[in-house]
Amino acid sequence: MSFNTFGKLFRFTTWGESHGPAIGCIVDGCPPNISLNEQDIQIELNKRKPGQSKFTTQRKEDDSVQILSGVFENKTTGTPISLIIYNKDMRSRDYETIKNKFRPGHADFTYFKKYGIRDYRGGGRQSARETAARVAAGAIAKKTLENKIGKKYKVIGAITQLGILGCDTNNWNDKFISKNSFFCPDKSIVKLWEKYLLGIRKSGSSCGAIIEVRARGVPVGLGAPIYSKLDMDLASAMMSINAVKGVNIGSGMKSAFLTGEQNSDEISQKDKTIKFMSNNAGGILGGISSGQEIIVSFAVKPTSSILNSRKTIDKFGKNTSISVKGRHDPCVGIRAVPIGEAMMHCVLLDHYLINKAQCGK
Amino acid sequence: MSFNTFGKLFRFTTWGESHGPAIGCIVDGCPPNISLNEQDIQIELNKRKPGQSKFTTQRKEDDSVQILSGVFENKTTGTPISLIIYNKDMRSRDYETIKNKFRPGHADFTYFKKYGIRDYRGGGRQSARETAARVAAGAIAKKTLENKIGKKYKVIGAITQLGILGCDTNNWNDKFISKNSFFCPDKSIVKLWEKYLLGIRKSGSSCGAIIEVRARGVPVGLGAPIYSKLDMDLASAMMSINAVKGVNIGSGMKSAFLTGEQNSDEISQKDKTIKFMSNNAGGILGGISSGQEIIVSFAVKPTSSILNSRKTIDKFGKNTSISVKGRHDPCVGIRAVPIGEAMMHCVLLDHYLINKAQCGK
Amino acid sequence: MSFNTFGKLFRFTTWGESHGPAIGCIVDGCPPNISLNEQDIQIELNKRKPGQSKFTTQRKEDDSVQILSGVFENKTTGTPISLIIYNKDMRSRDYETIKNKFRPGHADFTYFKKYGIRDYRGGGRQSARETAARVAAGAIAKKTLENKIGKKYKVIGAITQLGILGCDTNNWNDKFISKNSFFCPDKSIVKLWEKYLLGIRKSGSSCGAIIEVRARGVPVGLGAPIYSKLDMDLASAMMSINAVKGVNIGSGMKSAFLTGEQNSDEISQKDKTIKFMSNNAGGILGGISSGQEIIVSFAVKPTSSILNSRKTIDKFGKNTSISVKGRHDPCVGIRAVPIGEAMMHCVLLDHYLINKAQCGK
Amino acid sequence: MSFNTFGKLFRFTTWGESHGPAIGCIVDGCPPNISLNEQDIQIELNKRKPGQSKFTTQRKEDDSVQILSGVFENKTTGTPISLIIYNKDMRSRDYETIKNKFRPGHADFTYFKKYGIRDYRGGGRQSARETAARVAAGAIAKKTLENKIGKKYKVIGAITQLGILGCDTNNWNDKFISKNSFFCPDKSIVKLWEKYLLGIRKSGSSCGAIIEVRARGVPVGLGAPIYSKLDMDLASAMMSINAVKGVNIGSGMKSAFLTGEQNSDEISQKDKTIKFMSNNAGGILGGISSGQEIIVSFAVKPTSSILNSRKTIDKFGKNTSISVKGRHDPCVGIRAVPIGEAMMHCVLLDHYLINKAQCGK
Repeated sequence: MSFNTFGKLFRFTTWGESHGPAIGCIVDGCPPNISLNEQDIQIELNKRKPGQSKFTTQRKEDDSVQILSGVFENKTTGTPISLIIYNKDMRSRDYETIKNKFRPGHADFTYFKKYGIRDYRGGGRQSARETAARVAAGAIAKKTLENKIGKKYKVIGAITQLGILGCDTNNWNDKFISKNSFFCPDKSIVKLWEKYLLGIRKSGSSCGAIIEVRARGVPVGLGAPIYSKLDMDLASAMMSINAVKGVNIGSGMKSAFLTGEQNSDEISQKDKTIKFMSNNAGGILGGISSGQEIIVSFAVKPTSSILNSRKTIDKFGKNTSISVKGRHDPCVGIRAVPIGEAMMHCVLLDHYLINKAQCGK
Repeated sequence: MSFNTFGKLFRFTTWGESHGPAIGCIVDGCPPNISLNEQDIQIELNKRKPGQSKFTTQRKEDDSVQILSGVFENKTTGTPISLIIYNKDMRSRDYETIKNKFRPGHADFTYFKKYGIRDYRGGGRQSARETAARVAAGAIAKKTLENKIGKKYKVIGAITQLGILGCDTNNWNDKFISKNSFFCPDKSIVKLWEKYLLGIRKSGSSCGAIIEVRARGVPVGLGAPIYSKLDMDLASAMMSINAVKGVNIGSGMKSAFLTGEQNSDEISQKDKTIKFMSNNAGGILGGISSGQEIIVSFAVKPTSSILNSRKTIDKFGKNTSISVKGRHDPCVGIRAVPIGEAMMHCVLLDHYLINKAQCGK
Repeated sequence: MSFNTFGKLFRFTTWGESHGPAIGCIVDGCPPNISLNEQDIQIELNKRKPGQSKFTTQRKEDDSVQILSGVFENKTTGTPISLIIYNKDMRSRDYETIKNKFRPGHADFTYFKKYGIRDYRGGGRQSARETAARVAAGAIAKKTLENKIGKKYKVIGAITQLGILGCDTNNWNDKFISKNSFFCPDKSIVKLWEKYLLGIRKSGSSCGAIIEVRARGVPVGLGAPIYSKLDMDLASAMMSINAVKGVNIGSGMKSAFLTGEQNSDEISQKDKTIKFMSNNAGGILGGISSGQEIIVSFAVKPTSSILNSRKTIDKFGKNTSISVKGRHDPCVGIRAVPIGEAMMHCVLLDHYLINKAQCGK
Repeated sequence: MSFNTFGKLFRFTTWGESHGPAIGCIVDGCPPNISLNEQDIQIELNKRKPGQSKFTTQRKEDDSVQILSGVFENKTTGTPISLIIYNKDMRSRDYETIKNKFRPGHADFTYFKKYGIRDYRGGGRQSARETAARVAAGAIAKKTLENKIGKKYKVIGAITQLGILGCDTNNWNDKFISKNSFFCPDKSIVKLWEKYLLGIRKSGSSCGAIIEVRARGVPVGLGAPIYSKLDMDLASAMMSINAVKGVNIGSGMKSAFLTGEQNSDEISQKDKTIKFMSNNAGGILGGISSGQEIIVSFAVKPTSSILNSRKTIDKFGKNTSISVKGRHDPCVGIRAVPIGEAMMHCVLLDHYLINKAQCGK
């Protein structure tokens, strides 16, 4: 049982509210003797942090991380790694007006009904601010897997659909992804996206997105059927990210439309190297990695906080309406890219360790 | 850690191979004093069992379940409920020819690479035969929730997409679903589906499907953020089903294409009854049930066992090809309907108990 | 969360009631490619089974075990191993008289108060019959550790205190233990014990016992501080056995009486072999195995079912008295020896796998 | 799996090293709407903190706790409660001399062998400093149970054996316990203990102790057989405390010496009040609370850090000797009293919530 913990052998537990003094996490189960310092984590956090472009919220947070335990002389010791990030730019007054109203599309209503109490400031625990903690955990998983598997191990995420505009994944370019504000992998579409999202932002509206995360260099054999399947844990990981409503492995929902001939990825070998002729499976067969690229995509719904007025009720049960004026991302999906990468790292390390335990390799 | 266990407080652990003597499961954490007999479970098993129409595998199995423990004088006692289903119609000779070949799209390759050994007969542990055990567990969850919540609680699943053919969910008719071989909710499309699937079957091919499962009468407040979110556990549950490649909650992947205005489900009340004006959220906000209908859909890939020859390798690493002649479903998605329902029951009961523990209601 | 499951990576889940059709367990997380057949398990079960001497219950049970899954061509496959033992000699009439009365010292009262229902036949789930299932699981753990560590790995248990009569552990003789009805390690005391226990039995009374379990050849480094310490898990394992009321690691409760000088086990080396000069720690320091012999002892209270009349109440709340006439062990501690050994094997394998995962060795 | 987490539904995860910047914990699963402020926690921490008398270590720590999350307007919100305690009086120079030597009786050797790296400063993670975090968690469990059960709920611990000197538990006096430096319950013995422990201290030696923890007002029905028995979890909890080597429930190890007649606690009722005539069971039958006082005792070995020189080896494998000069408790058992109380609170709340879930009461 774990409400705020993710993982089995490599586990992280997050804590903190949007407008509390700090947020953080404990990473437990990290192998010893992995090189680690705060900068390793900061690099990943910086990808996610707000206020970096006009396409994300204007809340200013350094997201400066401190390691409080578990690392000695820049090496992990096998004991729990405690990380803390102090909150800085909290303008709680922004939220006073929505103290008693339930914002549609947010978890205000359900938290209140469940717990009978909620920290409404900035969404409290339901805020996407929590995701900084998991990006930090992901950075540790990444360092560990690079140590164990080597540099061929690489995870990279991108936006492949921005609202109504897709991109051509045949143009996927790893290097380009980090050079634009959208984590867009396709150079040819980025200008159009920019124009589109500026329009969305100006109108006080928002849009959804699809994020695709790819993992390369993953050994064959990760995943533990039946109820710790790799795809199951990846679906769970991605669905735990705020605002995610759908998850695909490989061809995902589209596989429903295929025939057996189209879908089954044929196998062949040449000079003892096994090759799959396609990757509809997204690198996972029967819940176990096949050695192919792991491909997961997920949909993030449009930001629920919009300027345009929406009907709702207040906590006293009265009809009212709301227009959310705070600082918000026109497309929260963008900042979900490093979060998706982090969750991928964590799930893969978890299964790497599980496989080590059960199958000794 | 649990390789073959699903759930937190209401847990089931399955065991058994396709061509072993039996399969079964242990259900642990079921509340005491719930009326239960073998017939309650058999009813659900019969929905899933093979050989019922020309659209499913011709393997003949009674799927006759026995309760070995945990029930005394037709009441649960709070102790573990052990269920067993003996395998009967096992024709292991059918599989002798594929003993050393990896069927594309199946888990033959990954099981062998992971474990270095596999029971190849009928797919062994990777066979969908395992799902009978979870349908049995789901029947117990269903009985328990009906006891706790009452008759307004209802879960119903259907096929909404059969290969390239969808149906109109506006025509959704609960009663019609059980009256056709496809669990189709839309009377107007069923003839077309029949013709289509017969064609697929005759050609030795297969097709995928999308299953939608709806749960009504679910109380507000189920789900435990951040890492035991209700949608996360549902995604995990559905992704654990054989051949599932994508999971949607409510609007799912489509929510990426919506604006904030289109997506956020407005709220109002009349005479103290809260009403949502739409259900893009699929009944879940911030990982917690909102009291709306819970809507989950998932895609099942086309059956990988097809008559047409496919390229592959054998366990000695040599190139070869394979054509699978056994008894197979042209669309395994059909029999996934009762499995999806079962997993919904199990996840909901689990969270019902968790909510009882933490929030006392 | 696990009511009926023990272990973390190597896990077993037991089920079954004393007078139900069968009992059994699922062993999950066993590594693949371990030689295993029913006889390997039967050998251990035979040590525990009732009716073997005049010092144990006269219930006759073959305790014949069947493997239903997880083993293919006499090798484990990495999938769950399901074991079943049918109950045979159930004389439910013996228990009809105590249907409504709570036997003092038994769990009749607490089960009834907790669940509001109980299978009273033979104690139902609370019966020590459940321990057969864990002895079976322990046999699998034993085979696995012998495979991984080699033949230097050995676990052996013995009775060191029978009621008021102790033995001299300086006379500990491995071979003698299996040659007497008491698992007594000290040849010089066994005649006296025999006389003593016959007296107890004739008088319709019962006595307690202390069991000591030793594990040799255990590698240094097993145990995961802080909350999966090896001693913690061993204490938990032994305390889970029916009627156990106290657990010691090494000097145990007696360490309270020692000074720091007496207690700390000095360390030295000779020719690179590390040697501890004493073993008050019982082979565990800071929750981690030190490479010394692991020594655990535990106390089993006297059998609660005795001929002599005891005051109690019935389920209607009325004062009454009871004298238990069924077939009972005068000292249940004796049959606890193989159970303690089994739990030792299971805990050690669990931590062997955990250490493999985290520390790669 | 949880290396640094304790509990099932009410869970705490601790982190931190003796000489790192801080220690702390996350408490997850606490019900919402429980009154809680830092002072509630500080009161309990003050009982454990060092430097309070000449009988404990002279390290000076405020042990001042801060709540970083999970509490809003002095009420718990159902989200994780993060607690932090900054380390202050760290004299790492004290430990420079033992950097490469393994102190006998400590976990230096096993940590090094397991992880290949260790923070040797003040014992790092193995230091009893970690227990401050669990005392803090226990304070939250206590507040919650007082809220749920009411003021009749009370847990109180005491030292019943100090080295070779016992006390008369028939003289047990709750109020006296907090009025002496030993948590001694028996006024008649305290002078003698004082003299004895001063002697131990002056000689640079140390002694062990037995702690007894009693819980009153615990409802009948807590505990979940077979593998989440209340006594099993209590044994596990107490054994997880540094330096504990033995745990008893009720009569504990002594029950081995009793006959069935002596041991079984007879039951009677008067005016519908159920009364047990003795409490050898320590309030637990079949792993479930009976409504009697819960009685757990455990032995703490003598402090391993002593002035007198002891033989050992260094990390290079050479023979050497060591005399530990830092600031140490002559009897670490004394400060284990509030830790034992804290663990009792945590286990009881955990089972209170589990029982609520499964049995609805």
